[in-house]
Amino acid sequence: MCTDASALVEAIRSLAVRGAPVLGIAGAYGVALAAARGFDVEEAARALEGARPTAVNLSVGVRRAESAYRAALAETGDPTAAATAALAAARALHREDAEASARMAAHGLALLDELLPGGGHRVLTHCNTGSLVSGGEGTAFAVALAAHREGRLRRLWVDETRPLLQGSRLTAYEAARHGMAYTLLTDNAAGSLFAAGEVDAVLVGADRIAADGSVANKVGSYPLAVLARYHHVPFIVVAPLTTVDPGTPDGASIEVEQRPGFEVTELMAPQVPVTGAGAGIPVAPLGTQAHNPAFDVTPPELVTAIVTERGAVSPVTAEALAELCDGLRRTATG
Amino acid sequence: MCTDASALVEAIRSLAVRGAPVLGIAGAYGVALAAARGFDVEEAARALEGARPTAVNLSVGVRRAESAYRAALAETGDPTAAATAALAAARALHREDAEASARMAAHGLALLDELLPGGGHRVLTHCNTGSLVSGGEGTAFAVALAAHREGRLRRLWVDETRPLLQGSRLTAYEAARHGMAYTLLTDNAAGSLFAAGEVDAVLVGADRIAADGSVANKVGSYPLAVLARYHHVPFIVVAPLTTVDPGTPDGASIEVEQRPGFEVTELMAPQVPVTGAGAGIPVAPLGTQAHNPAFDVTPPELVTAIVTERGAVSPVTAEALAELCDGLRRTATG
Repeated sequence: MCTDASALVEAIRSLAVRGAPVLGIAGAYGVALAAARGFDVEEAARALEGARPTAVNLSVGVRRAESAYRAALAETGDPTAAATAALAAARALHREDAEASARMAAHGLALLDELLPGGGHRVLTHCNTGSLVSGGEGTAFAVALAAHREGRLRRLWVDETRPLLQGSRLTAYEAARHGMAYTLLTDNAAGSLFAAGEVDAVLVGADRIAADGSVANKVGSYPLAVLARYHHVPFIVVAPLTTVDPGTPDGASIEVEQRPGFEVTELMAPQVPVTGAGAGIPVAPLGTQAHNPAFDVTPPELVTAIVTERGAVSPVTAEALAELCDGLRRTATG
Repeated sequence: MCTDASALVEAIRSLAVRGAPVLGIAGAYGVALAAARGFDVEEAARALEGARPTAVNLSVGVRRAESAYRAALAETGDPTAAATAALAAARALHREDAEASARMAAHGLALLDELLPGGGHRVLTHCNTGSLVSGGEGTAFAVALAAHREGRLRRLWVDETRPLLQGSRLTAYEAARHGMAYTLLTDNAAGSLFAAGEVDAVLVGADRIAADGSVANKVGSYPLAVLARYHHVPFIVVAPLTTVDPGTPDGASIEVEQRPGFEVTELMAPQVPVTGAGAGIPVAPLGTQAHNPAFDVTPPELVTAIVTERGAVSPVTAEALAELCDGLRRTATG
């Protein structure tokens, strides 16, 4: 339980709180918490924003609550009223994310049905994108769940998602809870599934989408995109529009978080939080260096569609994305 | 320690003894052991051959020792002399494998230097193909080691190789022992390394090569071949000619071993042998089904070259492979 913003920063760093949409919600509530408890709101906001560099939603959520706080403080001069405004902003973001999730699920399922008219979808997913990362039922997972509810999901292939096994620990849990037909696999076993024609579509979330449509998502997404292209299988990204960052022009501009090597060189028991080197069971020789990027970047030409709460963009172009985002901004200010 | 053939069968099944070339050597010694201890040699041979279905070397080794045993028995009528002949056959295979390994290393390095004239090779490898699987220094690993000894290996990227982590546990150990510049990564992190231009070549071994040049190797090899193709990086298979099975016409005819799901749903401490479901730390919900193929199959059109002890085949065609194998048979019978 996080009773102040610094505990929340630590929870975000150690991935106890993770997943792009819920990071935004958590960031906004973190600002509201700092305000309610009389901490320095700007300091808390910067610490929260900096907890993880890649997911843009975190920064969006933090800034929204911070703006609400500042506006109310400027208007009323009353820190209590400003804290209330920050909390209201966090709650609004939370509610909007749930609504966005439901809309993404509907748009995503419509797209699946359009791309795969036969029904009986066999969907491969990576990492965790369900209700554990969302104010609602998630992003990519919500689409698979919608297909399941309509009786049109034949199989959910769940990548285990090394090194932290979000697929095994979280997605398998969510799939089991909903009674979905799911099968777990190591990330490297996806290749032969494609080759055997057992994958109809790939559905993943996103941590940041650049203005050109490049998608940063959990490491392992890019190889799936290449496999999907090679096998003529749709690779579909499902993310709320807050994930699109117009300030990041392209994939090369996306900062990819490098995480500590011990996540790879040691096995972690899932009940033990990720506390530092030496806390797990060593599986590699002492002193082994590991390359451990948290994300990879898929260029827009490998993305069949980006599904947002306002509909799908396909093909993925800077212009189409900008149009969708402008629509959102007009609605927000209108 | 295996003091009879049935203990060796169990060691092969549980992967205490693993890796295509050493499986052949172990199979041959297993037959010699059964003969020396007065067991039914044919029964032992069939049990050893059947311990794992994909690696053809196992069967080749078993049959070679068995043939020597039978021939000597037919000639002398003396089981002791026949057992001695089986042991001599196993020792010859062991010695030949060491010689083949040295020749593969030389041919492989020559090919690397030809394909990558700049030197400073950054090589990605998967699974374990060093001295732990060979009578000599291995297959793919032996090529990287030769490059290292010549000062031309800039980096060895070591895929951890889920689910059993042969990369972390074995290849990292061999690389560290030889003082090679190596870096460990999760299998799914290879994609962004290719995208960043950090991989000059992929070197892998093989468990069975069909007559058409299709390569069965550790699961995760095929996605690397697709990534390599997409990024115009050579994908090189290094294997002794005993790995080529003229009796298997193509990739679709290769039987891919399916291993138990608990290797994926549970984390195993490396000091604990793989003994059965429930022996590890569960990481997925109880009852989770896992798809756990031990191998995948890469079609010849994605393989830049197959390097054997008699030189490289490139491009990989049924005709070129058959020619190389015929040369071997002529030498063996000449």
